[in-house]
Amino acid sequence: MKPKAAIRGLPVYQPGKPLEEVKRELGLKEVIKLASNENPFGCSPAVWESLAAEREFFAMYPEGTAPDLRRELARHLGVDEARLIFGNGSDEVVQMLARAYLEPGCESVMADRTFPRYETLTRMEGATPVEVPLVDGTHDLEAMASAVNERTRIVWICNPNNPTGTIVARDALVRFLDRMPEHVLVVVDEAYYEYVTDPAYPDTVSLLDRYPQLFILRTFSKIYGLAAFRIGYGIGHPDVVTELNRVREPFNVNRLAQRAARAALADQAFVERCRRLNREGVETISRQLHEWGLHHFPSHGNFVLLDTGKPADEVFQSLLKQGIIVRSGEALGYPTYIRVTVGSPEQNARFLDALAVCLGRQRNEVR
Amino acid sequence: MKPKAAIRGLPVYQPGKPLEEVKRELGLKEVIKLASNENPFGCSPAVWESLAAEREFFAMYPEGTAPDLRRELARHLGVDEARLIFGNGSDEVVQMLARAYLEPGCESVMADRTFPRYETLTRMEGATPVEVPLVDGTHDLEAMASAVNERTRIVWICNPNNPTGTIVARDALVRFLDRMPEHVLVVVDEAYYEYVTDPAYPDTVSLLDRYPQLFILRTFSKIYGLAAFRIGYGIGHPDVVTELNRVREPFNVNRLAQRAARAALADQAFVERCRRLNREGVETISRQLHEWGLHHFPSHGNFVLLDTGKPADEVFQSLLKQGIIVRSGEALGYPTYIRVTVGSPEQNARFLDALAVCLGRQRNEVR
Repeated sequence: MKPKAAIRGLPVYQPGKPLEEVKRELGLKEVIKLASNENPFGCSPAVWESLAAEREFFAMYPEGTAPDLRRELARHLGVDEARLIFGNGSDEVVQMLARAYLEPGCESVMADRTFPRYETLTRMEGATPVEVPLVDGTHDLEAMASAVNERTRIVWICNPNNPTGTIVARDALVRFLDRMPEHVLVVVDEAYYEYVTDPAYPDTVSLLDRYPQLFILRTFSKIYGLAAFRIGYGIGHPDVVTELNRVREPFNVNRLAQRAARAALADQAFVERCRRLNREGVETISRQLHEWGLHHFPSHGNFVLLDTGKPADEVFQSLLKQGIIVRSGEALGYPTYIRVTVGSPEQNARFLDALAVCLGRQRNEVR
Repeated sequence: MKPKAAIRGLPVYQPGKPLEEVKRELGLKEVIKLASNENPFGCSPAVWESLAAEREFFAMYPEGTAPDLRRELARHLGVDEARLIFGNGSDEVVQMLARAYLEPGCESVMADRTFPRYETLTRMEGATPVEVPLVDGTHDLEAMASAVNERTRIVWICNPNNPTGTIVARDALVRFLDRMPEHVLVVVDEAYYEYVTDPAYPDTVSLLDRYPQLFILRTFSKIYGLAAFRIGYGIGHPDVVTELNRVREPFNVNRLAQRAARAALADQAFVERCRRLNREGVETISRQLHEWGLHHFPSHGNFVLLDTGKPADEVFQSLLKQGIIVRSGEALGYPTYIRVTVGSPEQNARFLDALAVCLGRQRNEVR
């Protein structure tokens, strides 16, 4: 019973500690999790109400094609329904892309510090990941274009990039797409799309007609606040969607997720409010870090990657003892940085207070 | 943008028509779906009540290891927690097994008429499916053992078999396991496990200690009535579980499914009632088929595969016009058979009435 060669040595995913476990172990009453870029404001109240409609269908398989959500999302995005594919989270769409397009002898190109699943899933298919260093925390699209060769099947661009929060602008992306040979699929992962307020950020959907190689990933796990349900999607050329449907599990997106996504999509006021509160949170945190002279990347998502000037794991532990879970930069390639999710105004204040204690700084009332 | 060789030519899954669509197109008020072996009695009422506890966590990712459900299920089954892995339906565990153990040059052995995903997922990995004919609708374990060679990585045994409903008995399975070389994983898919009442049916969990190669699949989609949620599981050697965890998506089982499964598991009275009603339904249907002299396989699951003596697609259409959706045997390798899910007593009566009309028979009141 030997597993296949490509998965030998692949790491087993180690999940973060549950909130409940952290509370128990540290004897804390309240713990704030700012580690997984989840929405601190939850999701639209319409989501819970919508679930009652599914109650009589719990014993029935979902429709894999998600026809109702497909129709409503296609209208919302202004794209043809045939351009959409849904996944058990957008992570599953990443998996489907790797499964459909990568095999031994192929390469996929990605940043050296980005969402780690691009690399893991490339390796799982026996293909070779080619990492291109970020410059100032940002994708170096010129260098990535130069890394493309006849073996390249996919280029992954995480925009905003996780964990740095930086974006590539429309002009740079269009120049990049113009350089791409026909055999390369360009996957732009926009998990944090709805959080971005910078006008330079590309409206990738409007580029789909011009670039059949462009494939966009979005999710309901972030600003829509539905991470518990597992639903994300891809937008691309109908031919690519057809290939992905070949590797899709027939019933991959559960019924409740489809229903919840429809309710969430219909409540754009909630999305608007979260975007505004997140932007204010980013500014509050950035101002304090600036006051303290701590380097941080300009964040366009709902998280900030900041340099504590100390070993990241130490800072992580110190914050944990104060009841705040963040992500240590150690495993992210930034050994003195931490990545913190932007929380509610109260959570952001508590995080900054705890960080001040940890770093021996004074909290300036710059809010 | 060429997909990998292994998926070229793989069929795109074509889902059945939604109930709503069938109603609209045929102008029918009520349509009964007996096509997907779903539980006609729904699920435990405790499931709906349990979901409220998740409401405050909708924005938070599920724990991929499902610690609460894992603990409760391990206790229920009497196995060590390290033997369990959860999937987005047991179909996803089938996918994980194929992904972890199959690659080009490998083979996997299966029946010629069985759950089609074993073959599709084998091909998807570039491996070769080896099909062994059923005998009287039953797995021929002797022939399957003879089909095993040094290239074999997995043998799939669907027990009860879908679509025939037959079982392999404990003695035959043990003889088979005794013949298996060390490099072969024996996957016994027990999606319909809880429906079986025949004492010859193997208690596979009790064989785990003796046969490290044995891997069992179970699901919450069938008797537990949670198909909408997508949750199933595998039980096997901890080393195999470790390999599967390498290919598992980090957040593959949604929060609501984990919660629903816990509530469903705790309500064994519901399971007991469904098992009894299903057995009565199988007997009602079998008696009528016997009266009519129509061949059918002895079913141990919640469905019956029966010979209509006519082209299956015609019978399918005729039943559809009467508001009953079944599965045509055409695509299952039985061109004059239909597979019907055992429904509620009322649904079974309506099905038999409709079948009588379709075949020009008299309904004997043998119930």
